[in-house]
Amino acid sequence: MKPDTVLLDHGSGGKMSHALTAELMLPAFANAVLEQLHDGAVVEVNGLRLAFSTDTYVVDPIFFPGGNIGDLAVNGTVNDISMCGARPLFISVGMILEEGLPMADLKKIVDTMAAAASVAGVQVVTGDTKVVPRGTADKIFINTAGVGIVVDGTSVTAGNARPGDRVILSGTIADHGMTIMTLREGLAFDTDLTSDSAPLNHMVARMLDVCPDIRVLRDPTRGGVGTALNEIAQQAGVGIRIQEMDIPVRPQVAGVCELLGFDPLYVANEGKLLAVVPPDACDAVLSAMTGDLRGRDAVVIGEVVDTHPGKVFMTTRIGGSRIVDMLSGEQLPRIC
Amino acid sequence: MKPDTVLLDHGSGGKMSHALTAELMLPAFANAVLEQLHDGAVVEVNGLRLAFSTDTYVVDPIFFPGGNIGDLAVNGTVNDISMCGARPLFISVGMILEEGLPMADLKKIVDTMAAAASVAGVQVVTGDTKVVPRGTADKIFINTAGVGIVVDGTSVTAGNARPGDRVILSGTIADHGMTIMTLREGLAFDTDLTSDSAPLNHMVARMLDVCPDIRVLRDPTRGGVGTALNEIAQQAGVGIRIQEMDIPVRPQVAGVCELLGFDPLYVANEGKLLAVVPPDACDAVLSAMTGDLRGRDAVVIGEVVDTHPGKVFMTTRIGGSRIVDMLSGEQLPRIC
Repeated sequence: MKPDTVLLDHGSGGKMSHALTAELMLPAFANAVLEQLHDGAVVEVNGLRLAFSTDTYVVDPIFFPGGNIGDLAVNGTVNDISMCGARPLFISVGMILEEGLPMADLKKIVDTMAAAASVAGVQVVTGDTKVVPRGTADKIFINTAGVGIVVDGTSVTAGNARPGDRVILSGTIADHGMTIMTLREGLAFDTDLTSDSAPLNHMVARMLDVCPDIRVLRDPTRGGVGTALNEIAQQAGVGIRIQEMDIPVRPQVAGVCELLGFDPLYVANEGKLLAVVPPDACDAVLSAMTGDLRGRDAVVIGEVVDTHPGKVFMTTRIGGSRIVDMLSGEQLPRIC
Repeated sequence: MKPDTVLLDHGSGGKMSHALTAELMLPAFANAVLEQLHDGAVVEVNGLRLAFSTDTYVVDPIFFPGGNIGDLAVNGTVNDISMCGARPLFISVGMILEEGLPMADLKKIVDTMAAAASVAGVQVVTGDTKVVPRGTADKIFINTAGVGIVVDGTSVTAGNARPGDRVILSGTIADHGMTIMTLREGLAFDTDLTSDSAPLNHMVARMLDVCPDIRVLRDPTRGGVGTALNEIAQQAGVGIRIQEMDIPVRPQVAGVCELLGFDPLYVANEGKLLAVVPPDACDAVLSAMTGDLRGRDAVVIGEVVDTHPGKVFMTTRIGGSRIVDMLSGEQLPRIC
């Protein structure tokens, strides 16, 4: 039975989020661009291909090792634009502040956003700030939207994946999500986990330089690598087989996942990407990635296959095979 | 003394909002586009002039006569883009939902957004939905950002106002703000006030058709007509003289303002605009406006003068003259 109120699960990035989008948003806003369900939209204006994307950040706590809600918001939109095969140029910032937020916290967040924009090479050109009475929001929520220009000669979209393509992951998974979780669970002092929040646009530019034919780029944020791969498999109508032993997870992150009962495949990343590339370009793309700060640990984790269309399956460490489903409920509320 | 926490006043759209922007945001995000402090940014991409804008909506209550938070959010960004002399094309939607929001309310809001987008002729092409636990937001907050294309041959910006220009107001003021206030004060049953929430892009297209030289367009939302005129006067370094008796206010709205102690000059509008136009084009622009559904009651309310640079002053009904200052505190929290 469908719930008659909004549940935390609807914000998970997993199955219930997708159902909300498919059943409520898509029929209302019906148009071909939105229906691509990409991280960002690619639209044409006077012959120019633009990427346009938005994301809202509600992470709790707002400060964490490796960043805060401010650079998370800038990097997130920079990355969503990049995943369209586009070069991000301009960012908007919409803030909701709770009355009573310390001005010093706001200043720290704003300064971090400015620094993140500078690192990514984008300009914050427009913004809006609302203040709501104490108790009607939690400290600060930030929306960023971004505009970029699609790199000439590229066509990066989930539907492009085809059998034989290789799947590359840019580095270790679950760092962001487990950093937030250890803070919430009061385990932060026992670990030195750090969010991977980072802009990926410079690395993507290098990748598209060596291979304009990259089929798909996706940053596995909410819902993690497992959900992102499912989205690709479904939208392209292909199967994806990955090798568990090839997926890099920091030992500390793996340990905390086990302790708290999380599967790292579904935990949010904020500075990683998945790339689906033609087999003959795989080495070149991988080499462009490992030559970049953000992709030093990049590895091939699997390939696109013509069996099990719409499904992701994983060869486990002990040689078995299991289906990797889309995240179904809310694993981590307010993770980004 | 400067406050060390965020106050409701910082979200008023008036003096404290401007101080927060000037002292915290502008130094951090320093760039020429942001420093124009327009409703939207005009940026150039490969020779194409784009308008880009964002706004976040936190109105309470979320449903009101004349609309709801959904069409308010779509119309608001459509209008911000239009105030750049641009044709809005694409909208993004970022929602923060409070756990427990009735699904029927969400559906009604989304359907209203879709209808508003259709009336305005814009496409919702990208979006994001976050859900936060009960008590950490209030029902629903919506951010919209928009992208449009600046109309060829136009240059609409507050700094352009010059002595001799006429100031046109597109209709009655304070309708939106006082509709929300009567609801909050439990007076709604005694009045039939209706929000003026509406898209202004079609009217702006007609206006630019007859006068590509329109100097300034500004929609007087938070902070009202008084604050918007002050922004224009300050940014252009000119004086603005308006005639109190020429400013249209519905009798019911005037009555509620008096009852609740509000000055309609500072109350938010959501479907009105101010236009500063060269004197010889005034009749043509006015006629384009009165020929449009959204500008039937358009009138000239004043002119730009070379005295009192940076100030707005008003000839009162009884023939006196008074300075119209910028709104200094929070008149109406969560009005949009």
